[in-house]
Amino acid sequence: MSSSGIYHHLLQPDLRLMLQENDQYGLKEFCDTLNPVVVAEVLQGLPPEDAQRVLACGSVDHQAEIFAFIEPKQQIELVETMDRAQLSKLIEAMAPDDRVDMLEHLDDEHVEAILPLVAQAEREEIRKLLSYPESSAGSLMTTEYASLPENITAREALERLRQQAPDRETIYYVFVVDDNRHLHGVITLREIILARPHALLSTLMRRDVISVHVEDDQQDAARQIARFDLLALPVLDDDQRLVGIITHDDVLDIVQEEAAEDAYRQSAIEPLEHSYFSTPLIEIAWKRGVWLLALAGVALITAAILDAYADITIRHGWLVWFLPMVLGSGGNTGSQSCTLVIRAMAMMQMTRRDKWRIIQREVLTGLLLGVCLATFALLASHWIFHKDWVQASVVGGTLFIVVTMGSLLGSLLPITLDAIGWDPALMSNPMIAAVSDTLGATTYYAMAWWLLEVVHGP
Amino acid sequence: MSSSGIYHHLLQPDLRLMLQENDQYGLKEFCDTLNPVVVAEVLQGLPPEDAQRVLACGSVDHQAEIFAFIEPKQQIELVETMDRAQLSKLIEAMAPDDRVDMLEHLDDEHVEAILPLVAQAEREEIRKLLSYPESSAGSLMTTEYASLPENITAREALERLRQQAPDRETIYYVFVVDDNRHLHGVITLREIILARPHALLSTLMRRDVISVHVEDDQQDAARQIARFDLLALPVLDDDQRLVGIITHDDVLDIVQEEAAEDAYRQSAIEPLEHSYFSTPLIEIAWKRGVWLLALAGVALITAAILDAYADITIRHGWLVWFLPMVLGSGGNTGSQSCTLVIRAMAMMQMTRRDKWRIIQREVLTGLLLGVCLATFALLASHWIFHKDWVQASVVGGTLFIVVTMGSLLGSLLPITLDAIGWDPALMSNPMIAAVSDTLGATTYYAMAWWLLEVVHGP
Repeated sequence: MSSSGIYHHLLQPDLRLMLQENDQYGLKEFCDTLNPVVVAEVLQGLPPEDAQRVLACGSVDHQAEIFAFIEPKQQIELVETMDRAQLSKLIEAMAPDDRVDMLEHLDDEHVEAILPLVAQAEREEIRKLLSYPESSAGSLMTTEYASLPENITAREALERLRQQAPDRETIYYVFVVDDNRHLHGVITLREIILARPHALLSTLMRRDVISVHVEDDQQDAARQIARFDLLALPVLDDDQRLVGIITHDDVLDIVQEEAAEDAYRQSAIEPLEHSYFSTPLIEIAWKRGVWLLALAGVALITAAILDAYADITIRHGWLVWFLPMVLGSGGNTGSQSCTLVIRAMAMMQMTRRDKWRIIQREVLTGLLLGVCLATFALLASHWIFHKDWVQASVVGGTLFIVVTMGSLLGSLLPITLDAIGWDPALMSNPMIAAVSDTLGATTYYAMAWWLLEVVHGP
Repeated sequence: MSSSGIYHHLLQPDLRLMLQENDQYGLKEFCDTLNPVVVAEVLQGLPPEDAQRVLACGSVDHQAEIFAFIEPKQQIELVETMDRAQLSKLIEAMAPDDRVDMLEHLDDEHVEAILPLVAQAEREEIRKLLSYPESSAGSLMTTEYASLPENITAREALERLRQQAPDRETIYYVFVVDDNRHLHGVITLREIILARPHALLSTLMRRDVISVHVEDDQQDAARQIARFDLLALPVLDDDQRLVGIITHDDVLDIVQEEAAEDAYRQSAIEPLEHSYFSTPLIEIAWKRGVWLLALAGVALITAAILDAYADITIRHGWLVWFLPMVLGSGGNTGSQSCTLVIRAMAMMQMTRRDKWRIIQREVLTGLLLGVCLATFALLASHWIFHKDWVQASVVGGTLFIVVTMGSLLGSLLPITLDAIGWDPALMSNPMIAAVSDTLGATTYYAMAWWLLEVVHGP
């Protein structure tokens, strides 16, 4: 039977029944034989007290495995229902990176209360991992890597890996280090198995190892793993010593998180830390409201600009008809450029020349799109709305300017944000929309005043 | 030396020199000793003829490895510069999934010209893989998996894996099959190494294997790999026979592609098939232009609505000041809801109940945001723009309605698109913006007419 075919709503009633009847044996089997991912998903549908009772029936190793797949928010709820004995065993059994992940989501007070329950060795390691900056490679890595010295044979290597295997995150990449943990090379388990039994690791290993520094951003680590299709990436300290590894499955989480953040920012939402349903409604409303208010605030500037042109509005009331088109087109073009540039920057490292090429391309595209939209607007306002050619030129001319400007600004903003070291996706799209509104309104009425009142004056 | 520290602009001049001097030995070393990812990246900066000359110097296995990391568009340019002998050797040396990936990007005529050059066995396999629908699990998988029968011992298994290892995509997941390739279980190389040498695979293997069907969408495959943190996912045919595997590194590409597509659609751009720089400017302009024109077309409907209310505009010229705020706020709120719902749907499978909960949450959030923005608009128009309370109520009241409606429509649209089997991200955001413009304009002027001319009539 395929686990993907197990439906949670089929499992939950069974589980409720076992809980009601306090069927310890059944609960233990549930925890210990089902895939931990499935168990974690089912437990997240239960109240924390019930989930804790189920979990407590499993062996401590299975508990740790299951626990690692539970969402941070629910992990904390679960932790709060556990007694000290259960909690300390669970924490000791967890992989270092999962453990630190969980502790990072707890408040400091709570962490200080839990740490004394954990054995000395683990405690020091936890403190060490917690000390790395959030979203650094160090905070993401696990310290349970497989490592070997370089002066042993392939046969010995396999023998030693057998001993290391049970508590290592992966044994498929083996890191070759000296007594001071300086990283000398890397070798895959496949290469060890394929090698002649008496060949020395030093002759087999690959010496040009891709690695990251412990304080590098976790996104750089993710990018290297994705770029080189790695299973694990070594993390080094200032002295080039191996301190941990980051594994392929962490990358996927980062890439997805990153994509979600970009999507939120693009739509003027402060990124959510948890999933949609586990974020309280009031928090979502707040994360949306601040930006809606900020953008409404900018719209007041546009209001003031329109107020300043009040006399033109009175003399040429029809101008208002095309205002949504003028403002919208500028904003839409800017937002397109923004997105293209942000995406391009996410996919590759840009040189100065690349950035310059982007700006050139965007201006060219802007001019092209500007001509198209201006023609459309000119013809539509003349033929559909019966404006004379001068009036139609006000609409068409403005469209040409706002679309070209939108394209230029939309590419400049993320490049500038990136250049000063900020996240290029940081509210670029909503900012562009706001700027293009004020700019569009000014251009539109200035063009109307000039063409209708100066050139073809009253 | 770490490969991540090799700068391409340092490698390229060396390479150009070697090409000029026709330094076959140097070029061979470049291809055969550097990381294939780095070689591929450097080659992409060269004209196709030069890249082909460099590549031809490497051993055929390295050529195949390097070639797999080159972008599809440049792969095709390279293929066109190769003679038949080089091309047929290269294609035979490539992994089945990389090979099919490349052939899928070539036009049919070209494929038919190439296939006769390839050995019989490979040719049949290529035709088979090419026959699976695009973006199905079958089109993504490789057929080079490691498999063993269940009645052998761990020691024998290791021995046999040694023989299979050289030409398998991965030997870390071993699939246990019978003579008809029916999948009975899975075992990891780590488990084989840790097992007692005389234990039978049938007693060691895990029987509840996560798998996908060959015609499932590749995104479902990606989702399973991500959900269960797998290294490889088996792909089965209608008779539950193992036909291939999908590996962890393919998932990352799919997730990134997917994120890019969503971002493009969110900004009204038809998704690009290649990277920003390798897409011709005219193609980008087209993919943006169609949507800009469509949205400008919708803005003409708004123009017609405003035209219909021309007499109110003349009597209350100040209404235009707040038009950008009214239309913008509705669009922004709708786009926020849209993004939240699309993201939530991308992260989890939704039940009918979940969807209903989303709509409830969005309406509630909309009401909350509506009250905030309405209050802001009411106070701002009264205190900053000196409108009386009735006039200010027109602005505030409209904002309340458009924000609430924006939130409702923004959640309904992706849910509806999903229900009829379309991609929920399909232009949801631009469509919401367009709809909210027409709706916002109607509401605003209808509210103005009612409050200013009917209730407090002239």
